[in-house]
Amino acid sequence: MIDVTLLGTGGGMPMVNRYLASTLLNFKGRKILIDCGEGTQVAMRKFKTGFKSIDLICITHFHGDHIFGLPGLLSTMGNSDRTELVTIIGPYGLAKVLNGLLLSLSYLPYDIYIIENPKKPIAIKANKAGLELEEIEDSKASNNCDMVLKTIELDHSCHCLGYSFYVKRMPKFVPEKAELNNVPKEIWKILQRGETIEQNGKKYFPHMVLGEERRGIKLSYITDTRPTEEIVDFISDSDLFICEGTYGDNEDLEKAINNKHMTFEEAANLALKGNVNELLLTHFSPSMDEPEVYKENAIRIFPKTIIGHDGMRKLLNYR
Amino acid sequence: MIDVTLLGTGGGMPMVNRYLASTLLNFKGRKILIDCGEGTQVAMRKFKTGFKSIDLICITHFHGDHIFGLPGLLSTMGNSDRTELVTIIGPYGLAKVLNGLLLSLSYLPYDIYIIENPKKPIAIKANKAGLELEEIEDSKASNNCDMVLKTIELDHSCHCLGYSFYVKRMPKFVPEKAELNNVPKEIWKILQRGETIEQNGKKYFPHMVLGEERRGIKLSYITDTRPTEEIVDFISDSDLFICEGTYGDNEDLEKAINNKHMTFEEAANLALKGNVNELLLTHFSPSMDEPEVYKENAIRIFPKTIIGHDGMRKLLNYR
Repeated sequence: MIDVTLLGTGGGMPMVNRYLASTLLNFKGRKILIDCGEGTQVAMRKFKTGFKSIDLICITHFHGDHIFGLPGLLSTMGNSDRTELVTIIGPYGLAKVLNGLLLSLSYLPYDIYIIENPKKPIAIKANKAGLELEEIEDSKASNNCDMVLKTIELDHSCHCLGYSFYVKRMPKFVPEKAELNNVPKEIWKILQRGETIEQNGKKYFPHMVLGEERRGIKLSYITDTRPTEEIVDFISDSDLFICEGTYGDNEDLEKAINNKHMTFEEAANLALKGNVNELLLTHFSPSMDEPEVYKENAIRIFPKTIIGHDGMRKLLNYR
Repeated sequence: MIDVTLLGTGGGMPMVNRYLASTLLNFKGRKILIDCGEGTQVAMRKFKTGFKSIDLICITHFHGDHIFGLPGLLSTMGNSDRTELVTIIGPYGLAKVLNGLLLSLSYLPYDIYIIENPKKPIAIKANKAGLELEEIEDSKASNNCDMVLKTIELDHSCHCLGYSFYVKRMPKFVPEKAELNNVPKEIWKILQRGETIEQNGKKYFPHMVLGEERRGIKLSYITDTRPTEEIVDFISDSDLFICEGTYGDNEDLEKAINNKHMTFEEAANLALKGNVNELLLTHFSPSMDEPEVYKENAIRIFPKTIIGHDGMRKLLNYR
């Protein structure tokens, strides 16, 4: 299960009635934040999400509406006595940009670990103390983790990353299989957790006690960008596809092209081609007071479209 | 006349119901902003003050609650097609801190002029295109300006500046005096404006046509600090003394001492000793939900105390 909160749904500038596009994932009691525009920490207070247990922050790109809330949030996390490491992932140049933003801070009581433009998937394991991250060769090498994060390069006016999160689902435990493979009863639980163990000179693997692979939960997050064919592959079969819909009106297509953004219709086309389950639109232009007005432009192409609003929560469960 | 808007009245962290302490002065159609915490540009939208005509930003110190709104505001000012120079005054290190905060911005369509820790008064002249600033030897050398800005070093946990603004009032024009001094009628208006002119080999000065000096408007702004004797001199005879009141409860005196802040009572004592006309408290601790509850702690000492609130406006006129 993964709990998704849209902290804000605005793009460009922070507004009185709409926070900037930023999304919080809650997973096994720990948190992942995607983007952090000015006011993100205030939205967290408003929607009572808490911020102390944020272990990972994913930054799409360095435009102000996606990063200017970072110095404030990181300070506030420090003031709330956080001491565990925080990992921040983002495009090339992240370390430099972050050092600049934090130049006035005398200290933070926790360390920041920076990953710039990861080319390989990242395996994430959740435990009570926080999220553990490890770069892996490919998704198949992710035996002993809970979630796999991937990035994609988007087509915006600056270097920009999209993100996907795949929450793994353990196969069912099959006692008949364990008995058939002569696995001693006392190590069933270890193999069941996905771990490998050697006993009396013999190696035991999880597949010896587990059934067929089961589908997990896939969440993808694409903003800011023009639509590309690579995105279609990247988001394919997502349970939830969170996507920028900067412009609702089809007549704003030229603006979308010039500013390297998308219309609702374009986002819906991506959702259709990507065969996703649900499309959630966000990152609305400040010029668009009521994005709901343009919902039909997306629904016509992809019926399972939701227009996001600040504070919207979605619980994603295994299907 | 000077128009003062409290954009926010909070200290420490931005809250859902209280913006961070930041104050906007409107003077002859141009604007001066004092401090800029996260969300300041949103408060400006909420209170419909406009931000394009901000010519001068005065920064007290580099704690996040006073500066983390700068990159966003400066971007937004750029996006609104501002091209005129913006001057920013602040403590030593301002250039470095600002360069860091703005590292991710590819460009701004206007220039920023930085003044670090000015030791001398600054004469400010307002015209339609903006505010012109000039460092002067002392306030007496400020003949041809509309306002004089001064700074004072405060006693906070980091280098911190207080500000005062003196809006000058021109003496009355006295035609009898002009005639007595044989000033040609065609140059009366020039002298009346405070300018000096030479005609037919003779120099004419403003005092030849003007009456006695008249009291202007003094506004002083003190946050964040412990009370000091230097502050009493600096704020003396202010029409409005805007002062931090981080803690309302007298029992928080120890906290105030440790965190280098003030209680309401301490701020009121400064107001009394400084013989100011009115005390306006701001920069309330996030732990204080309703500062009004503690008003009596200030009133008892200095009756003309106002508890600030976000969006509060004060019009200061010549007395």
